[in-house]
Formats: sequence, structure tokens, C-alpha cells
Amino acid sequence: GVLGSGDFARSLAVRLVCSGFKVVVGSRNPKRKANLFPAAAEVTFQAEAVKKADVIFVAIFREHYSTLCDLADVLVGKILVDVSNNTEINHHKESNAEYLASLFPACTVVKGFNVVSAWTLQSGARDGNKQVLICSNNQEAKRTVAEIAQVMGFTPVDMGCMSSACEIENIPLRLLPAWKIPIFLALGLFLCFFTYNLIHQVIHPYIKEQKNKLYKIPIEVVNTTLPCVSYVMLSLVYLPGVLAACSQLYYGTKYRRFPDWLDQWLQHRKQIGLLSFFCAALHAVYSLCLPMRRSHRYLLIETAVKQAMEKKMTIWVEEEVWRMEIYISVGIIALGLLSLLAITSLPSIANSLNWREFSFIQ
Amino acid sequence: GVLGSGDFARSLAVRLVCSGFKVVVGSRNPKRKANLFPAAAEVTFQAEAVKKADVIFVAIFREHYSTLCDLADVLVGKILVDVSNNTEINHHKESNAEYLASLFPACTVVKGFNVVSAWTLQSGARDGNKQVLICSNNQEAKRTVAEIAQVMGFTPVDMGCMSSACEIENIPLRLLPAWKIPIFLALGLFLCFFTYNLIHQVIHPYIKEQKNKLYKIPIEVVNTTLPCVSYVMLSLVYLPGVLAACSQLYYGTKYRRFPDWLDQWLQHRKQIGLLSFFCAALHAVYSLCLPMRRSHRYLLIETAVKQAMEKKMTIWVEEEVWRMEIYISVGIIALGLLSLLAITSLPSIANSLNWREFSFIQ
Amino acid sequence: GVLGSGDFARSLAVRLVCSGFKVVVGSRNPKRKANLFPAAAEVTFQAEAVKKADVIFVAIFREHYSTLCDLADVLVGKILVDVSNNTEINHHKESNAEYLASLFPACTVVKGFNVVSAWTLQSGARDGNKQVLICSNNQEAKRTVAEIAQVMGFTPVDMGCMSSACEIENIPLRLLPAWKIPIFLALGLFLCFFTYNLIHQVIHPYIKEQKNKLYKIPIEVVNTTLPCVSYVMLSLVYLPGVLAACSQLYYGTKYRRFPDWLDQWLQHRKQIGLLSFFCAALHAVYSLCLPMRRSHRYLLIETAVKQAMEKKMTIWVEEEVWRMEIYISVGIIALGLLSLLAITSLPSIANSLNWREFSFIQ
Repeated sequence: GVLGSGDFARSLAVRLVCSGFKVVVGSRNPKRKANLFPAAAEVTFQAEAVKKADVIFVAIFREHYSTLCDLADVLVGKILVDVSNNTEINHHKESNAEYLASLFPACTVVKGFNVVSAWTLQSGARDGNKQVLICSNNQEAKRTVAEIAQVMGFTPVDMGCMSSACEIENIPLRLLPAWKIPIFLALGLFLCFFTYNLIHQVIHPYIKEQKNKLYKIPIEVVNTTLPCVSYVMLSLVYLPGVLAACSQLYYGTKYRRFPDWLDQWLQHRKQIGLLSFFCAALHAVYSLCLPMRRSHRYLLIETAVKQAMEKKMTIWVEEEVWRMEIYISVGIIALGLLSLLAITSLPSIANSLNWREFSFIQ
Repeated sequence: GVLGSGDFARSLAVRLVCSGFKVVVGSRNPKRKANLFPAAAEVTFQAEAVKKADVIFVAIFREHYSTLCDLADVLVGKILVDVSNNTEINHHKESNAEYLASLFPACTVVKGFNVVSAWTLQSGARDGNKQVLICSNNQEAKRTVAEIAQVMGFTPVDMGCMSSACEIENIPLRLLPAWKIPIFLALGLFLCFFTYNLIHQVIHPYIKEQKNKLYKIPIEVVNTTLPCVSYVMLSLVYLPGVLAACSQLYYGTKYRRFPDWLDQWLQHRKQIGLLSFFCAALHAVYSLCLPMRRSHRYLLIETAVKQAMEKKMTIWVEEEVWRMEIYISVGIIALGLLSLLAITSLPSIANSLNWREFSFIQ
Repeated sequence: GVLGSGDFARSLAVRLVCSGFKVVVGSRNPKRKANLFPAAAEVTFQAEAVKKADVIFVAIFREHYSTLCDLADVLVGKILVDVSNNTEINHHKESNAEYLASLFPACTVVKGFNVVSAWTLQSGARDGNKQVLICSNNQEAKRTVAEIAQVMGFTPVDMGCMSSACEIENIPLRLLPAWKIPIFLALGLFLCFFTYNLIHQVIHPYIKEQKNKLYKIPIEVVNTTLPCVSYVMLSLVYLPGVLAACSQLYYGTKYRRFPDWLDQWLQHRKQIGLLSFFCAALHAVYSLCLPMRRSHRYLLIETAVKQAMEKKMTIWVEEEVWRMEIYISVGIIALGLLSLLAITSLPSIANSLNWREFSFIQ
């Protein structure tokens, strides 16, 4: 059974019919809505629909849950599947599913299918994320819904008791939560080092020697800033592991929980590492662009002309030559190694490595 | 039961035996073929085999389906699994499975396993694509075959009724269908812009001033063509979304189907976007190679020599310096952003993002 | 039932409780260990625990299996799940599971869950590898354990009979086995070509003309070595396919097994190809860095000064210009094609291609 006639209700009905289920749709105005649903689905009044079905998908907004109270009698003993989503994280005190359960204490409420979009339902689960997170206090009902999800082509994932409903409802609303802190960290570091380099490379020469080097800002200053950010971020990837080991040695046990800040830090290592790689890669591209610049060309010609006019044939500073050769070759090797690390953090590669291989590469 | 003794029949028998099923193989010449199959599988005459099995995999070519007509009596009530593939898309008017069903109306026919190769069957489903697309008009039979697929280690995907058989049979034959139009589009755009740039940079100077600039063709002309293609392709990614929104506003509903051309266009956006990124990345590599060229070196030395002979110490055109610095830094930032977009289009990354995150990155 | 009180036993109990199972933990010292387990799990003496459970996870070290012999009577008819791992590949003659089965012939032993880490168990199967490899001689027991794994959110993979236990136990211990030979091959080839290029570009000019070109070692010599390695590796990717085809033609059958060396070679093609791509990509980066070097700058200025002093206006060797333009553009196209090949070898991309598409791209 499906209650509701919105986008999601319709896609759900389509998918259930395609997967071979008998579907009955409950609507307040079955005649007007019937043409929206596939022909194989029976569209009738809500009370009728509820009577005919054992598992009922409640595809209506939380605000309208109370309108179902008239159906309380016929709903006794049924399994209600709450598929709703919120528009804001932690908008209400209790999750939608818990609210539904409190309204209908005689029903078994299962939270699920909210992480799936109407579009995925219609187009089939072949592409895209196929996981359906399910939770309920009733094991039997949870297993029934999990089986329905499986037949529909999704992968049900058991998320435990009803108390997880809030977490499940927040999933479609989250916006890269693991990236927020690392990105602000990277921006902060960038700003600090950029200011320092700006003063060092542009403002200082201007004040001291009245030289206009403003043209260095877009590329050279950025390019000397990026590796600093990259290095600091890379060290921030490995530091918390050391701190955690120290804490374990100090307390003599590995079962003591780490303090919250360390736990958070440990969980953000992957993101910090990827941002470090991103800065390193940008630094490589910026460096490669240096000889393309007009200013590089002018300086080169200037030197050549000056030497020609002074009749100095050759200037070859062995130390500078070697320093640059070694800089570049070490830089390339470092970038190659960081690329390997970045590739192994792709989900599909990481999944194919066992723990021993992963720590070897790290 | 397995009918047939080709590669696929043998791999299927091996896999079924390994997954703990009792397997009986039906062959026209059981004595000669027995040594091809695993010892645990019983190889016997076709009629014998059919009698002993409830689910029968028909691993023979469509052309030989009619040879099974002798077995029509013993086949009554059995589940026939059609695993066949065609050699051409839409070769026959009806799908193989529908043809089999029309030959044996007293059997239940299920289409499945054709997307799996004999090699995947033998080597197990650990690596590679594990999906087995299944369709049938009989829900019970479909579920039986889905369970067999699951025990064999595959992920059954319910594709609905028998009418999907044609689509399932075409899957192993398709050749990057979503890429055809975008690639021809990119090639067409490349040709247009290449011709324009060739005339502008090579032919025109030759006719006007008799200057031989043919050496510019392999790199410089290609390099000015690529970003044009990239820009036009990128705009073609975002244009159909705007058109779709306009169409929805005009008709005042989002349930009206888009015209076919717009629908097609909307579905190809990902491929067009990736080709746009590919052109942009090639443009970056070409640009980075510019200072490596002999011609660049010669022109540089020529300018230096000319200046030295004219005793002109320094030429520093502030505007040109700034223009180049800004070109390069904006180019790098654009490439970095396009790379992010390209990375999120990798299936394993895209699956780990929810809709809100995906649209945020876009 | 869970026997043991280590990390893995605790994580297993947590996960089983979360998935809605009734869990009883058997410990030698239930009072002291009870606080380590979730409240919903009953912690009692081993004999008690075994009596109450049908499926018993043996989460203790192989060395302590014999301590369970006291429980032999109560264990009769139970399903024992061996979750143990070794510390070395092929440490013992027989696998842990087979050893357990030999100790308790009246029990049904199933191998499984050893590829899952305690951490994955606790944090849920949402991220990371979700496959649980299972093997047993008893189909019924294997299916029971597979169902438990499924309810826990894992993907059970049937690995057949108990004889696969050894293979399953070695999986968490393997260290990129498919990469060992290709990496040593690449290193060997690199060494050979590096030596040749070192003699050719540095030692020979030094001996013959007393010219100090040592500065070329870190970049130029490495840069001329990399494409040689890349080419040889690329040819080694396609050679074994040709040899295999010849062997099939010679013997007139495709069912004859290839000799072991050829089989090994065929299986390492992907890794060899990726290393070939890695060398090619490094070569590209090294080449792009060439104009950034101090030595490049000095040589350029030297040439300009020399020409200026000799009053030679222009030197333009058409042939050299063309050679370089063509080198670079062919190099870029080759790198672009190799990148495509490398991208299609990502597991998530490879899984979305059918055989025809894969061979088309190759």
C-alpha cells in the first residue's frame, strides 16, 4: 500500500508494480489522481487501501501525518514505512519516523527509502547508489521491508533501532560534512602564508627599493604559498596518529576513548590528505607555467642583452644548476608518490585493498 | 539442468557445482561430452536431464531452439532460463527469450545470465560486474532464478516483464551508445574551429605576407582550437537544463514529457561535460609544451640578438605581462574546478554523494 | 554465540546485537569480561553459552583451539564459524578451519568473516569492502552463515568447499601479489636503460672531451630512460596475447591450458600496462620541467650572446623545428590515449563496461 500522490508516491508505485508486487494506492481523491499512477496499481480511498495492504508506505509530508488519525482503527497491526525527508537538518526535535510511531502506537513503524530519490526509483537501481538504509524497533517488520527493498533491486542496510531514524533522515540533507573543517583549515593556512609571501615578495621590495613587482601576485606569490599549505596539511595527516599512539602508551590501554578533538581529527585525515595533494598538484601546474609567462621572457632577453653588451660570453653557476635540477626531480618524485596515495583513496580502489596493503602504501 | 555443451554451458555447470547445486547436463552425445564437464555434474541424454531438473538453463543458440521441440512433453511445467545472446543489435524481430516462450507455451521462460561471460562464471564473481539482469512474466519463476543467481554470488536485478528481454539481450552488444553523439559533436566542432584557425594563423599570413608558418599546424593551431571546443561543449552541458526549465515554466507543469531531442540532450550531458574536460586538459598540456619547442627557442634568441644589436636594454610591456599572468592563473583555476567535476563523475565517487552534495559541486 | 573476548569478539557481538540477533558470549571469566560487551549480549561461561546457541563464532587464536576440547560434548551438532587469521602466509600445513574441523568432527565448521576487520564490524558495513568470503563442506550451514552475514549488512560470497579455507585465510595477509613481478620488471628495465643512458650522455662525453655533464643525471638521463621503460612494458602487455593466440592455433584447440609462465604473464598484463602508463606520465612531467631548469636558461643565454657577438641575425633550422613540433604533438596524443586506457582500468569504470566496449577501447 502507498499513501500519498506526490512524485515519490508515484515513483514508488511504478517501481513496486515493476518488481511484481500488487500495489494499492490510497488517495483522498482517487478519481482525480488515478491517471497519475500505473494502470496495474489500484487507486482507491485511503481507508480502503489500508485495509487491503499489510505494508503501507506513508509518502506524505510530516505536517500531514495528523490527517491520517482518522485511519487509526484500520491501521492497527500494519507495518508503516516512513519514507519522508526534512528540509533542514534537525528541524524537529524528534525524527519523522518517531513522530509517526508516537501518533500510531498500534502500528509498527519502519524508517527507510528516504535516501532514494524519486528519479532513482523510476529509472531502476541499475546506476547510482543502491543502498536503502532501514531502521525499526521491530526486527520482523524490518526484515519484511528489507526483503521488499531487495526485490526492488536495492541493497538494504540495517541501521539498528528507531533511534537511528534521525541520523537516516539527516543523510540526504548533509553537505559534505567531513570536508568542512579541512577546507576552512586549508583556506586559513593559505591566507596566512599568502599574506607572508605577499609582504616578502611584493610589499617589502616596493618599500625598500621602490620596485614594482605587483605582477608577481597572481602566479608567483600563489605558487610559493601552495607548497607551504601542502606541507603543513600533510604533517597534520600524520600528527594525530602519533598523538593517538602516545595517548595509548600513556594510559596503557587501547580501549580508552580518545578525547573528542583527537577523534574528530583522526576521522578527517583522508580529507586533509586529499587537500594536501590538491595543493601540491596545483603547485606543480603553476610551476610548469612559469616559463610561459611574458615576464619570464622579458627577464631572459634582458639578461642576454646585458651580457652581450658587456661581452661576457658564459655564466654558468654550477651550484644554481644543481640546486634547480635536484629541486625539480625531488618535486616530481614527491608528486608521484602523493598521486599514488590519492588514487588509493578512491572508493573503488580502497575497497579492493586489504588492511595490510593499505598500510604498506601509506 | 543445463542443456548444451558449449563454453557457456560448461562454465555454468562448473559454477553451479561450486555453489552447491546438483547439476544434470543434457547433451545429444553424453559419452563424448562428459569429460568436458566437472565430475560432480551428471551428463546424460537431453530427455533424461530435463526429467530430473526443475530449472533448466538453455545454453544453445537460437538457431537450434527448434531441435528441442522433441522434448516438449517432458518440458511441460519446467522453468526454462534463456541465457542466449545475439550477434547483432535487434537482429531478430522478437527477442530470443520471447521466441523460446512461443515455442514452449507450457513452460515458464526466464531471461537471465546473458550479460555474464563464461569467463566471469568460471573465475567467480569476486571481481568484475556482478549484476545479472533477469526478466520474466512469471514472478515465482523469476524469484527462483534470482535466488540461484544470488547463491552463485551474483546480484540479481529485476528488469520486470518479458518485454524487457529485448533490451537485456542488447546490453552485451551495445558499444558506448551514450558516447556516440557527444564524440561526433566534439569532432565536428573541432573540425570547424580548426579550419578557422588554420586560415587565420597559417593560410592568411602566407597569402598576405608570404610568410611560411606551416610549422604552427601540429601544436599552435590545435592548441587554439581545443579551448574553443571545450567552451562550446561546456555551454552545451548547461543549456538543455535551462531549456527544460523554460519548457516547464511555459507549460506550467513538471509532469509533461520533454520533446525527444531535449530528453536525449539532457541524458548526454555527462558525456559532453567529460569531453569538454578532456579538451581543456589537452589544451593545458599543449600550452605547457609551448616553451619546449625549437621554434619558441629560435624566436627568443632572435629577439635577444636583435635587441642587443640595437643596444636596446629593456623592453617591458606592463600590459602584456599582466595579461599573460591573469590568463594563466584563471586557466589553472578553471582546470582545477573542471577536474573536480570530472572526478565526481567517477561512478564510485558519484555513488557516495547525495543529491544535495552533487548539485552543490555542480 | 561468540567464544572469546578479544577485539574481534567484542566487535562481532556489537554488530550482531545491532542487527537484531540474540547474542550469548562464552568466556572463561565472564564476570571480569562482561563490561567489555554491549549490555544486550549475555556473557556467561563457555559451556553455558555453547548450550544456548546454534551458531557459534570461534573468535580465539588457533593456538587455543585445543582448550575448547572440554566443550566437545556440548558442541555436538553445532555450527562453528572459524573467523581466525594467521600471521604469516601458509604458516601451518592445514588451514585453521580445517584444523578446527579435525578437532571437532561432530560439528559443522564454516570459514568466514576473517576478511572483515574489527573496525569494519563496529563502524558498520556502509563504507569499505562489504564482501565476506565463506566456505564449508556443508551447504546448509554455509547458507545459514551467509544469511547472518547478509542481515549484518555484508555481501556473502560463496567460495565453495572447505579446501578453499586456506586461500581465504591468506587473503588478509597478501601484499599486492599481482604487483610484485611487474614492479621488479620495471625496476630492472629502468636500471638497464639508465646505465646505458648514463654512459651515453655523461660518462662518454667526459672521457672523450673532458666535458662535465654530471648535472644531467637527475633529470635528463632519467627523462630519456623513462620512455624506453614505458615502451618495452607496453609491448610486454600485448605480446603474451599474441603468443597465446599462436599456441591456440598450433594446438588447434582453445581448451588446452597455457603453460604456467604464459598464464602468469597473461594475468599480469593490467599491472604491467599501468606501470607503463606511470612511466609515460612521469616522462611527460619531466619533459615539461625541462625549460624550468637553470641549465636550460644558461644555454639559451649563451647561444643568444654568441650570436649577438657574431652579428648573426637569425638561425632557423626548419627541420629541427618540425621534428620537435611533431615529437611533442605525437607524445601528447599518445599520453591522452594511455590515460584513457588507465582510466578504464579503474574498478568502478571497468565494471560499467561490457566486454565489447572494453575490447574496443583496448
